[in-house]
Amino acid sequence: MDDIDAYLSAQTARFEDDLCELLRIPSISADPAQAPAMRAAADWVAGQFQAMGLPAELIPASGPPLVYAETPKVPGQPTVLVYGHYDVQPVEPLEEWLSPPFEPTKRGGNIYARGATDDKGQMLTHVLAARAWMATRGQLPVQLKFLIEGEEEVASEGLNAWLATDAARQKLACDVAVISDTSQFGPGQPAITYGLRGIAFCEIAVRGPRQDLHSGTFGGAVTNPINTLCKLLASLVDDQGRVTVPGFYDAVVPLSDQERKQLAELPFSDEKFREQIGVAGTTGESGYTTLERRWGRPTFDVHGIWGGQRESKTAIPARAGAKFSFRLVPNQDPERIIAAARDFLLTQCPPGIELEVSGRGAEGVVVPLDCSYMAAASRAIERGFGRAPVFIREGGSIPIVTNFRRRLGIDTLLLGWGLDDDNTHSPNEKFSLADFHRGIKASCHLWHELSKSTS
Amino acid sequence: MDDIDAYLSAQTARFEDDLCELLRIPSISADPAQAPAMRAAADWVAGQFQAMGLPAELIPASGPPLVYAETPKVPGQPTVLVYGHYDVQPVEPLEEWLSPPFEPTKRGGNIYARGATDDKGQMLTHVLAARAWMATRGQLPVQLKFLIEGEEEVASEGLNAWLATDAARQKLACDVAVISDTSQFGPGQPAITYGLRGIAFCEIAVRGPRQDLHSGTFGGAVTNPINTLCKLLASLVDDQGRVTVPGFYDAVVPLSDQERKQLAELPFSDEKFREQIGVAGTTGESGYTTLERRWGRPTFDVHGIWGGQRESKTAIPARAGAKFSFRLVPNQDPERIIAAARDFLLTQCPPGIELEVSGRGAEGVVVPLDCSYMAAASRAIERGFGRAPVFIREGGSIPIVTNFRRRLGIDTLLLGWGLDDDNTHSPNEKFSLADFHRGIKASCHLWHELSKSTS
Repeated sequence: MDDIDAYLSAQTARFEDDLCELLRIPSISADPAQAPAMRAAADWVAGQFQAMGLPAELIPASGPPLVYAETPKVPGQPTVLVYGHYDVQPVEPLEEWLSPPFEPTKRGGNIYARGATDDKGQMLTHVLAARAWMATRGQLPVQLKFLIEGEEEVASEGLNAWLATDAARQKLACDVAVISDTSQFGPGQPAITYGLRGIAFCEIAVRGPRQDLHSGTFGGAVTNPINTLCKLLASLVDDQGRVTVPGFYDAVVPLSDQERKQLAELPFSDEKFREQIGVAGTTGESGYTTLERRWGRPTFDVHGIWGGQRESKTAIPARAGAKFSFRLVPNQDPERIIAAARDFLLTQCPPGIELEVSGRGAEGVVVPLDCSYMAAASRAIERGFGRAPVFIREGGSIPIVTNFRRRLGIDTLLLGWGLDDDNTHSPNEKFSLADFHRGIKASCHLWHELSKSTS
Repeated sequence: MDDIDAYLSAQTARFEDDLCELLRIPSISADPAQAPAMRAAADWVAGQFQAMGLPAELIPASGPPLVYAETPKVPGQPTVLVYGHYDVQPVEPLEEWLSPPFEPTKRGGNIYARGATDDKGQMLTHVLAARAWMATRGQLPVQLKFLIEGEEEVASEGLNAWLATDAARQKLACDVAVISDTSQFGPGQPAITYGLRGIAFCEIAVRGPRQDLHSGTFGGAVTNPINTLCKLLASLVDDQGRVTVPGFYDAVVPLSDQERKQLAELPFSDEKFREQIGVAGTTGESGYTTLERRWGRPTFDVHGIWGGQRESKTAIPARAGAKFSFRLVPNQDPERIIAAARDFLLTQCPPGIELEVSGRGAEGVVVPLDCSYMAAASRAIERGFGRAPVFIREGGSIPIVTNFRRRLGIDTLLLGWGLDDDNTHSPNEKFSLADFHRGIKASCHLWHELSKSTS
């Protein structure tokens, strides 16, 4: 790989110029006024592929087009789907930016601009790695299929609709997907995110008397909707921090000894975690560490609750409600969990209360740590970053990963080049230029390692 | 009493004219623009006493003046404090009134106007009863001390401040108080309200992490303020509907067998109660009937709860809070109950949460059913209404009753001439003219019966 490494060293300035070009396009998908910028960004990305001699196309969608490009199939070698997005978040509050969001500015080894890390900078590492291979060898060692969308920040409606078509399934047929849109474990410590939690998001509506009642005249003889709501929500988790919905844990894949060992070896401090979020202590499911609770165990959290008045009015309110969710681990079925939670709550509903529980969900995913793709990615990252990655999970969901699993039947390698303090979605978004170049190098080696791993 | 009864019959039209005069004065204490009307109403009431030859005075207060008048002390006879108020509630929404709120209008045997029942009409029955005695006999058989305030609808600040002075205690020294500002048990069934619940009103504030956190990234490892709030509030009452705060029931005076028997004999239907409030069933403390739960047992009700967002945002909120109260029965000390509830909640507070609980309260009161005043009032009502009253309790608090007990050491007879559907505080407030006259007659007989009862 010396030829490619040498090419990368020689192209440093050019790569940064290319990144700045893309960052100057204000492709805010949430802003209808930026429709021309969306199209300009899509054209720019497609142009990159065309410039390296690859066929590229814009696939029409309900919103901004999808950019698609592919390299030729390499016999006996895997096909890899590379996903990214060219749209960015809004920039408000504008006055908090130290330099304008669409005038990329280098400060202290970072490039500051909206989209620097999320996801233009990270996505581009894979595009530029393909260019390096094409420029140096005239071909890729594996087949790459690039799918770069423009609606990631606004729920990917166009992509999701297209993914449900046979045409999409045929075009995207592949062995594994790669996404760089997450973070390293910390500065200088790259990571592979191999698991994501799913979610079952629910709303509960509690109805009691026809109208608010005076609690002096009626109190004690009327089932109070807020009292009831508190009792119902409190009943969903026991004193050990375990969810009480019958069957909730039936499908849970336990953390393996190997995973627990790896998580325990990560440089993580409970004390620093408490300082970070500003609490004196933490709680969670008994028998699990903080990282296990965040990444590998299901949860129950109420997100919003309402009912009655904030003033000092002594009424029994007619209505109350709440929104809550269970974060799920792989193998838990969100629809089943929602149905089981509804049944459990309904069986506890006291006389004088009407209850409605609705919900929607997304499945969690986990990529087997012992698969060959994972080993190849680990070696590639070690080459790119000079340090072997740690294997981490993420407590949230990335819907496209679930969708790739469902629609294409593939696993996704989440290779994050960003950092936790990159101000994603906030003013002064940044991306380390060193990590940008390390990411390109890691990507170049990834295609190499993936070809080795299956040969 | 024939002479007095005859006088009353002859004065029917005059009494109604007097009532209308007072009802025409828009004495809305919550409306600063009505300050002149407040003064006019006070003057009108004072003028009534002066017209019957009694000394009357306006006692200055921070707001509208208190009207005070008294009849001479009768040796060997009790002194009775008659309390009422000349201020009324606001009239909005004005468009729902069938006739203007300050143009008293007779329809179907009722007089419609703001203040008709609350409390100008009811208060006036006692003033006119005094006039009847003065006109007929030239004196009262017991000493009456009238105290008519103008801030009852806005928390009685002026009266409460004055009541705390020695001057007030000396001026108001008496044996028992009478208030007509409540309702009969039902049409044609007069009642004496002999018990009121107290209240311990609390606010709880729950603080968790410094700011809202992403429930995917952090969920499972952070104590959620809403989860905690629900668990804490749910812990305050058990499956039998009993409050779990240690010591909560220690001071509770149980309902006597006599009271339970009387309550059971009242014409009350659980089915009609459920229809009235629009619920399919009710719950409450095990082992008690609906009326016992409403009038004679303490409660726990949450009045308002808040935290997080109503949108579908999957955050762990930084804050949550609620307002709740315990309705108390006589002998329960609100301050002790608040302190015990705070201690109980604090001992359950999980790591990672800061908790604040504050509260304020009022004591419940009950007048012994077997006291001589009660028997006298019962006989007087039977004379006035043609039917013996039933003895009921009221689930709410009437702060002035607690204050009379605390400041003057006296019991209060709550003799309500109104009806539940009088639209107190609502558009189309009314008062039955028949009940107005029955109330005057009952009041005349009350002074007679009270003099007999101690002679």
